[in-house]
Amino acid sequence: MIQLNIKSQAGFIYKQIYQALKNYILTNKLKAGDKLPSKRELAEQEQVSLNTVSNAYDQLLAEGYIYSIERLGYFVEDIAPFKNRNEERNHFPEGLRETDLDLTGWLSLSHNKIDLTDFPIKDWLKHQQIAFKENHLALQTIPHMQGPLTVRKTIARMLLFNRGVKCEPEQIILGAGTQGLLKQLIELFPKETVIGLENPGYPRFHQLFKDNGNKIEWIDLDKKGASMTAINQINPNILVITPSHQFPTGVIMPVSRRIDILNWALQDEKRYIIEDDYDSEFKYETDNIPSLQSLDKHETVIYNGTFSKTLFAGMRVSYMVLPIELLKKYQTVHRNLMCTSNMLELFTLSRFIEQGDYMSYVRKMNYKYDLKRKKLIQALENKFQNQIRIHSIPAGLHFIAEIKTEITYEAFTEKAIQQKLELSTLSYFKQTKTHSSDRLTIILGFAYIAQEDIEEAVARLYQIIN
Amino acid sequence: MIQLNIKSQAGFIYKQIYQALKNYILTNKLKAGDKLPSKRELAEQEQVSLNTVSNAYDQLLAEGYIYSIERLGYFVEDIAPFKNRNEERNHFPEGLRETDLDLTGWLSLSHNKIDLTDFPIKDWLKHQQIAFKENHLALQTIPHMQGPLTVRKTIARMLLFNRGVKCEPEQIILGAGTQGLLKQLIELFPKETVIGLENPGYPRFHQLFKDNGNKIEWIDLDKKGASMTAINQINPNILVITPSHQFPTGVIMPVSRRIDILNWALQDEKRYIIEDDYDSEFKYETDNIPSLQSLDKHETVIYNGTFSKTLFAGMRVSYMVLPIELLKKYQTVHRNLMCTSNMLELFTLSRFIEQGDYMSYVRKMNYKYDLKRKKLIQALENKFQNQIRIHSIPAGLHFIAEIKTEITYEAFTEKAIQQKLELSTLSYFKQTKTHSSDRLTIILGFAYIAQEDIEEAVARLYQIIN
Repeated sequence: MIQLNIKSQAGFIYKQIYQALKNYILTNKLKAGDKLPSKRELAEQEQVSLNTVSNAYDQLLAEGYIYSIERLGYFVEDIAPFKNRNEERNHFPEGLRETDLDLTGWLSLSHNKIDLTDFPIKDWLKHQQIAFKENHLALQTIPHMQGPLTVRKTIARMLLFNRGVKCEPEQIILGAGTQGLLKQLIELFPKETVIGLENPGYPRFHQLFKDNGNKIEWIDLDKKGASMTAINQINPNILVITPSHQFPTGVIMPVSRRIDILNWALQDEKRYIIEDDYDSEFKYETDNIPSLQSLDKHETVIYNGTFSKTLFAGMRVSYMVLPIELLKKYQTVHRNLMCTSNMLELFTLSRFIEQGDYMSYVRKMNYKYDLKRKKLIQALENKFQNQIRIHSIPAGLHFIAEIKTEITYEAFTEKAIQQKLELSTLSYFKQTKTHSSDRLTIILGFAYIAQEDIEEAVARLYQIIN
Repeated sequence: MIQLNIKSQAGFIYKQIYQALKNYILTNKLKAGDKLPSKRELAEQEQVSLNTVSNAYDQLLAEGYIYSIERLGYFVEDIAPFKNRNEERNHFPEGLRETDLDLTGWLSLSHNKIDLTDFPIKDWLKHQQIAFKENHLALQTIPHMQGPLTVRKTIARMLLFNRGVKCEPEQIILGAGTQGLLKQLIELFPKETVIGLENPGYPRFHQLFKDNGNKIEWIDLDKKGASMTAINQINPNILVITPSHQFPTGVIMPVSRRIDILNWALQDEKRYIIEDDYDSEFKYETDNIPSLQSLDKHETVIYNGTFSKTLFAGMRVSYMVLPIELLKKYQTVHRNLMCTSNMLELFTLSRFIEQGDYMSYVRKMNYKYDLKRKKLIQALENKFQNQIRIHSIPAGLHFIAEIKTEITYEAFTEKAIQQKLELSTLSYFKQTKTHSSDRLTIILGFAYIAQEDIEEAVARLYQIIN
């Protein structure tokens, strides 16, 4: 006879019955074909209601532990015993254990971080509430693979106005980050496609194209940005550049080089330029520099932008503008893809832009970042005097500086950790590791740090160097 | 002499000067090396302030149209003329033009849509506001590649409680959709990996593995789900199954088949099972069926779930639980990947779950969907009588039904459009197109349709068939 050992304190009775019978079956104490007591018998034996036993039996039936034959009762299913591998079950290795980072006492001059303290979260939430109502139907279904048309219309208008980008909403692909969009893009090209990447440049893109199996060629920079000599020598199929604010050197590509590169692309139908316009919304002293795409008359430029710098990186909204030929290919090759950006966020963003809140926030942040930038430059010059040479290009959210010192990059990085100062050096972004032994180039992000912490951060930097 | 033709009504004066000079330069009316008038001369000539001219010159300098030599003045840069391809600039092809869908008068029994009318948007927004404050620092920087640890901890607890999934938060990868996560997963395996897919099954996964270059083998179903005969014959490296509610047939895999499949996987170290638990939160009449992963003692199951059904598809939050060996590989291969889910949404969701709002919403919807399901089944039986056979498996958000008719799938689909009724047939999800000529199997989603529209939808379905 089955002993169920039911305790009134141990949770739902029907679950206890279910669990007990399941254990009997899985441990083979009840065998295939064995008849279970009738519901009534078991209810009487355990002094519980018939309904309780019924619930337990129904669950066992649903999961397939038992079967029923009309008028005959319930029987145990034929269930094979679990096989075992010889080894013990893996315990979770402590090396993989994550802990929350403790950033107490740290200051950051990272180029990756932005300032979110003035973000109008309440306005944003109001827009979200309305966006939810207005797009109720769209949110209940699977979104358009390129993102909702209405949002793309907004982005197209914004890009024309802010960046001179000429495109139809149909050419825009929205997605969760430039990385993912570029991955979708490169899958439209054959594996043997040669990619020209700026050196120094953005390592995540390097990894992406490398993982995809492409051949990578390095395009060195001169004072105008990606060097024409290098481009003409290598003739990549796809040239990836950051003309508005070269990453990480900050060079703004002058119009002469832009036209030279567009003319170069025209020489072969298979040539494309990827313009990564990652932080072009921020420009100090003068107006923004129009995008390279705005000068392109022959659909050779694939324009990429993001809200990671103007809003925040974790928002995961980027856009890619495809030339028509590539758009056709995209819609064929990726016809099964689902858009990766959050739709509610996209609809909210669209309202935020249309109502003017986005541009007024960007303008406000542009002003704030300008103040931080000036203060950081001033503080560096005061402290380091002739020891520092700042490339103070008035754009974006970082600049680079050369410091006269014999300290190595490795030692610098180690000391920066000791000083609890987060920042990057140029060496991380450079392919050719040849650099003079008497100077160090560092990347100084000014977006995240609070104004009142700038002096202290510069003091720590001075400690590291001297 | 330069004629600038400035109009006081035509916007900012400095922009007009900038634009006029830029045009002169780009059309070669001002040539490389030409000296521009001094700022003072131009200001006098145009009767504008010196500051206005200064702004225009600064912008031209910033973009590289002109250069300055101290004490000598401003000169035109050497800029190559634009080259042109022979062809005209592409006009946007009308075939690619998108229009907003007009769904007026349509009713939907699509399995893809959900009901969002009871979503507690106000509570959600409140959680979002708090989540924004609480995670201010995290939002200003680049997120963890697998998603924030705190959110993964919440999901791990939820999965254990709801689905019996045993995992550490470190094993969870968060991302914008199961599709993207499976793509990341398959990139951990060699190209020659053989994938076993359920037939009928989910076509987006088929496409994904095919595009990745894998060999696809079809696993037919029997009444217990993926057939052991087929599995043993094909022995795929990775078997992709939907044990909780087979898509699209709805079969709930009984425990005997689950154990057979786990035992099969143990026979070769290279075998893995992908469990796609896409709509397991909804179960009627009995409790939920625990996940396959909950029975797995040897880390052969890769568990996948999503919030697309419980919240909405456009939210783009899915999770994948990796066995430890695959986790190690993942962290190496994908070390440069950025998480694709929206961080603010993740933090909001985490609060929504922790505070109990998520489960109470799921329970509420489970009740509502159960009512719709019963009503739809009742309406179908009333209208079609013996002409229909409903496979009314009490789980998920859809069921299938066979209808006796000689109408073909093609004709059915065409007539459904005429009747403005959205729904899918089985033929779309089936690889082997052999089906009997006297019946038609359709997939009936009951989540989206309003209760009061069910009768009308069934009437249209009847119109289509008879």
